[in-house]
Amino acid sequence: MTLTADLAATTALDLGPARALSCRECGHRTALAAEFACPHCFGPLEVAYEFTGITRDSIEAGPKSIWRYRHLLPVPGDVQSHPNTEPGLTRLIEADRLAAALGVRKLWVKDDTGNPTHSFKDRVVAVALAAARELGFTVLCCPSTGNLANAVAAAAARAGWDSVVLIPSSLEKAKILTTAVYGGTLLAVDGTYDDVNRLATELAADHEDWAFVNVNVRPYYAEGSKTLGYEVAEQLGWRLPEQIVVPVASGSQLTKVDKGFTEFATLGLVEPTPYRVFGAQATGCSPVAKAFEDGHDVVTPVRPDTIARSLAIGNPADGPYVLDVVRRTGGAIGHVSDEEVVEGIRLLARTEGVFAETAGGVTVATAKKLLEAGALDPDAETVLLITGDGLKTLDAVTDRVGPTATVPSTSKAVREALAQHG
Amino acid sequence: MTLTADLAATTALDLGPARALSCRECGHRTALAAEFACPHCFGPLEVAYEFTGITRDSIEAGPKSIWRYRHLLPVPGDVQSHPNTEPGLTRLIEADRLAAALGVRKLWVKDDTGNPTHSFKDRVVAVALAAARELGFTVLCCPSTGNLANAVAAAAARAGWDSVVLIPSSLEKAKILTTAVYGGTLLAVDGTYDDVNRLATELAADHEDWAFVNVNVRPYYAEGSKTLGYEVAEQLGWRLPEQIVVPVASGSQLTKVDKGFTEFATLGLVEPTPYRVFGAQATGCSPVAKAFEDGHDVVTPVRPDTIARSLAIGNPADGPYVLDVVRRTGGAIGHVSDEEVVEGIRLLARTEGVFAETAGGVTVATAKKLLEAGALDPDAETVLLITGDGLKTLDAVTDRVGPTATVPSTSKAVREALAQHG
Repeated sequence: MTLTADLAATTALDLGPARALSCRECGHRTALAAEFACPHCFGPLEVAYEFTGITRDSIEAGPKSIWRYRHLLPVPGDVQSHPNTEPGLTRLIEADRLAAALGVRKLWVKDDTGNPTHSFKDRVVAVALAAARELGFTVLCCPSTGNLANAVAAAAARAGWDSVVLIPSSLEKAKILTTAVYGGTLLAVDGTYDDVNRLATELAADHEDWAFVNVNVRPYYAEGSKTLGYEVAEQLGWRLPEQIVVPVASGSQLTKVDKGFTEFATLGLVEPTPYRVFGAQATGCSPVAKAFEDGHDVVTPVRPDTIARSLAIGNPADGPYVLDVVRRTGGAIGHVSDEEVVEGIRLLARTEGVFAETAGGVTVATAKKLLEAGALDPDAETVLLITGDGLKTLDAVTDRVGPTATVPSTSKAVREALAQHG
Repeated sequence: MTLTADLAATTALDLGPARALSCRECGHRTALAAEFACPHCFGPLEVAYEFTGITRDSIEAGPKSIWRYRHLLPVPGDVQSHPNTEPGLTRLIEADRLAAALGVRKLWVKDDTGNPTHSFKDRVVAVALAAARELGFTVLCCPSTGNLANAVAAAAARAGWDSVVLIPSSLEKAKILTTAVYGGTLLAVDGTYDDVNRLATELAADHEDWAFVNVNVRPYYAEGSKTLGYEVAEQLGWRLPEQIVVPVASGSQLTKVDKGFTEFATLGLVEPTPYRVFGAQATGCSPVAKAFEDGHDVVTPVRPDTIARSLAIGNPADGPYVLDVVRRTGGAIGHVSDEEVVEGIRLLARTEGVFAETAGGVTVATAKKLLEAGALDPDAETVLLITGDGLKTLDAVTDRVGPTATVPSTSKAVREALAQHG
């Protein structure tokens, strides 16, 4: 499915260590281009690489952003000479208090709220923008209901590109504001998110200069999530964790974290120690967890109904690959109710001072549930991925948290309130 | 004004390179303790140091947070062994598109929205917490209307400390949520922010284990802002900028950025090249700008009336010191209307993909105005400090930005909308 045929023929592309696109189903290799589906079997394409000369030192000497891993990504070696966002190298914190609350021996939280627009989407969009520039695109586009819209509009603004962001017209006003503020074209589409998605695929086929980050440049875009895996390993002191819990929407992130770990081990950057990958979903949109529980290889689509909207993909493209990774590594996939999601958000905030969006609540609450079920080993070193910010999903905690007390402005009143509530 | 007399006598404090507290008015030196006003003249105390063995290499080998500068801060050398937030090392981006829009040759934006709770307050609170622990306090407290409340509640949660945060009961619900979610004691006080502030001072005197970060441990707290200056210099490649524009609330941040630059030059970490420091205020709360314009040394308090609430301190404690720094370095202080603040927010977002809170709009708009007035040199390399996040002040852009168009979900409708609005 060549969308920009003239570009596909180009051989002078500089996409760094990327050498080809490779079909995840049939293994067919095709030249680097703006393609996303195998011309033989219509399976999804992913980037194939040839890595050279990558050492811990060369990475550590790099910039304090995902571009320190540029020689492991499908981006030009001079990626930093073009304006782009500089996401990544977010905090990995030792979460001793959350560990105690959950009954885990050793726990880390990867806090990706520190990215430019406060979600991991900045990682994938930055890689998509860099690849899209090299592929000859000039407009950055996406369908989205939130985090991706923010990231695309912001990255395009910084790069001086036009952007076209499609959102359902029913989206909450706050999410419209946080995209519209960056300028660019923001189209509110009368329809569901599925309608918006279909429209994006149509438009991508019609406009050869439009890079829909999660459609026609998806193979490049998806690689950005590898950096989450790289950073966890580097920040642990160049080693792999024993367990990691990853939220599952399309499932791409989980598979790319695994890919990142595998690449680091293959390149000798870390010892190839065993690790187990766990997936987390909201019960209201848990098709992959269901397939895992049922022992199926095929994921049956569902109609999402959960407050964890950033995970509400009812027909997750990478669902089968998530099942592969989780089963291969000996992990599991759990799911939690919206009530548990809110409790997860609050537990993380209370114990570690990290305010996550609903997806983060899913991760924390699922970790708790998997521990209780004995699927997660409490004695194994564990990392939780927190991929988005609570400021963007305030509705989840509205009417759930508030002032301890309201008092007159006297120290006597404060003392009394403390005696009563302290 | 010794609040915890038993602690003040302690000589075994480990506050790193800090050696004493020194009065900024009369120069009187007093032992390190939980004091904030000179026992002789009631002038403000600040930390005096003895620095040893600090090199670029030793800093670069440190953690990727403000703790890389721990040997320049009033914190124990082992500060990282206690749970705290790890703010800092936020992006310094080359802002070529904003530079072009403003007509400046070379511009950088220091984007402090990447901190744990998305404002520079995480820096000062992290230092206050580390010092407070060493000074024997066990409860972290503040009066606040926003960013500081978030930072204190989050840091206390992570450290496992109790917190007491005082807010005016009239505060917007979103700001209450983003503090309350971290747990701790959140007291809504019936009164103005001035009432809340007075109450904090009263309570600090009454509770010897309560560290009000911006009251009784203020000398330590304030030092956290030096790290903004350090980072700018390090991230520019170990050199000072020629001009820097800093928003002014209490004025502490501006004076500490200057202190950071001076220390780096004195220690030989950067060449002692000349720099000019500029202040930015909102017209609705511009007492320091007014004093600058009038050539006064004394700042006359005002009653704030501006959308830039995080800068709305009508009686800024460090106002006179801001005037000193600005005049000594050859800078200036400008002020802008609320309308200009919103335009500043939008200009920064559109050109660089950085969504700042109202204080950031003040900085950008004031830079524009100072350039137009010829006070800022367009040929000198300039840094703008963006210290807080637009997600926290969405009201400022509500009804100002929105979708380009609302369309049915067909590609024909999209084409028509683009033709009309493109």
